[in-house]
Amino acid sequence: MIGSDAVSALIDGAAADSVSVLDRGLHFGDGVFETIACLHGRPRLLSLHLERLAHGCRTLGFSPPASQALRAEVEQLAGTQERAIVKLIVTRGTAIARGYAVSGREQATRVAIRYPWPVEETAWQQRGVSVRVAAMRLGENPALAGLKHCNRLEQILARSEPEGAAAAEALLLSRSGRLVCGTMTNVFLVDGPPQSPRIRTPAIDLCGVAGVMRRVVLREASRAGIDTAECALWPADLDGAAEVFLTNARVGIWPVGRLGERTLEPGPVTRRLQTLLRPLLEEPADA
Amino acid sequence: MIGSDAVSALIDGAAADSVSVLDRGLHFGDGVFETIACLHGRPRLLSLHLERLAHGCRTLGFSPPASQALRAEVEQLAGTQERAIVKLIVTRGTAIARGYAVSGREQATRVAIRYPWPVEETAWQQRGVSVRVAAMRLGENPALAGLKHCNRLEQILARSEPEGAAAAEALLLSRSGRLVCGTMTNVFLVDGPPQSPRIRTPAIDLCGVAGVMRRVVLREASRAGIDTAECALWPADLDGAAEVFLTNARVGIWPVGRLGERTLEPGPVTRRLQTLLRPLLEEPADA
Repeated sequence: MIGSDAVSALIDGAAADSVSVLDRGLHFGDGVFETIACLHGRPRLLSLHLERLAHGCRTLGFSPPASQALRAEVEQLAGTQERAIVKLIVTRGTAIARGYAVSGREQATRVAIRYPWPVEETAWQQRGVSVRVAAMRLGENPALAGLKHCNRLEQILARSEPEGAAAAEALLLSRSGRLVCGTMTNVFLVDGPPQSPRIRTPAIDLCGVAGVMRRVVLREASRAGIDTAECALWPADLDGAAEVFLTNARVGIWPVGRLGERTLEPGPVTRRLQTLLRPLLEEPADA
Repeated sequence: MIGSDAVSALIDGAAADSVSVLDRGLHFGDGVFETIACLHGRPRLLSLHLERLAHGCRTLGFSPPASQALRAEVEQLAGTQERAIVKLIVTRGTAIARGYAVSGREQATRVAIRYPWPVEETAWQQRGVSVRVAAMRLGENPALAGLKHCNRLEQILARSEPEGAAAAEALLLSRSGRLVCGTMTNVFLVDGPPQSPRIRTPAIDLCGVAGVMRRVVLREASRAGIDTAECALWPADLDGAAEVFLTNARVGIWPVGRLGERTLEPGPVTRRLQTLLRPLLEEPADA
């Protein structure tokens, strides 16, 4: 156990508390990660997490570790705890030589870390969260869009903006002014007539992370007959939305209750989607 | 000694070969680095490297380590070797909690690694290098521009482009089409009439790294009465330049001998600047 009593880690499957000083993850953020909610020892949505992780490795040009190994490591750390978070980091591995160039002979490093479930405002699920729009804008690079890679300085700077202390989350615009996502969430807008509402979420084609819970919400909404769209969205769309909600793999859905100066009520579509997701979140079956 | 016999490392001043699995450098690339050429045990341009490093830490919102400590660690690793490279990485430190948020109580981690001087084509200094323009474009984010931070996936992807195998370096354009720099070098264009030439290098205001050797070349050129400019430049400026050269802290100046399909001769201004820099590179005084 490291850092605090509640944190525990495996590196390449063995209990350890440090990684090689030559790991390309340390040098360049050359890797991808997943944050997996585990309930009663069962990792939630693990297949979707591992699928995105493997896609990320391949997009960065290296072979993902065997999913059985990753699965076993997450399950080992989840143990029998009622609630825990397991973070998986997979880097390209130890550098063969100095510099950015890739030899192709690197062996991916698997890091799995168990963290305690965070203490949080449980009312957020019900009453909604306070959200602001970050001043810093995300650079746009389609080659990295969607990946949960380890180059996260932009998210750190956005979280650190002094005006952000009171908000639960900061929404991010991209350099060209498009609405993208939050620092650790995806964002959905609800509009359309009450009898046939529509949910829209920004296309993750220029920057941002394509969240696992975003994918689940799009799938479940579609199954429930709700119109869904992934498209270019702008701050004006945010201002015009009847309901706004955020998603991530741990919290499921957070209604947005405050958006800058504007107060919103968690609306019927957000509530309906929360109800649809509840079985998945509370009694997780894989995927 | 780690990795190979020639590599040696200090972490927070003590010989070590691994860093905490909770280090924010590993998780997020949350740090900055410098690559320092050391000749006969003397680190070249160390004050400029340490100045940029400290500026990078402050821009990312954390206190840089004491420069005396960093200086001592670089000098210790440089030892009495004829030629060595010392890489310094300074991260925000071990995470206090999971997630992007910064507590302000983190303690920066100092990593210093000695590498052997690379085996290279020494003719490159004379005959020039072959350069191509990368297909991938850099995302633009003024908040990170200029810093030698540890979020380097873009550089890794650009280096890895399959068509790049034969080129010594790939030049990078930004998302909006501006010429920025190479993956590990800065770029200079020479034009103007032969009796009063001008050297121009891209302004590093949207993305890219503001190299230490770039700064030295601008300073030395200016002292020698050569007109210099840092400004917005485009691929057409590259095509129109009489001479093109690259700079970095290790190699000094590489003339560009081939640019895609175009062959260039290393020209008189490039040669003059190489001559001006020679004392600094071969008998390094600090800064």
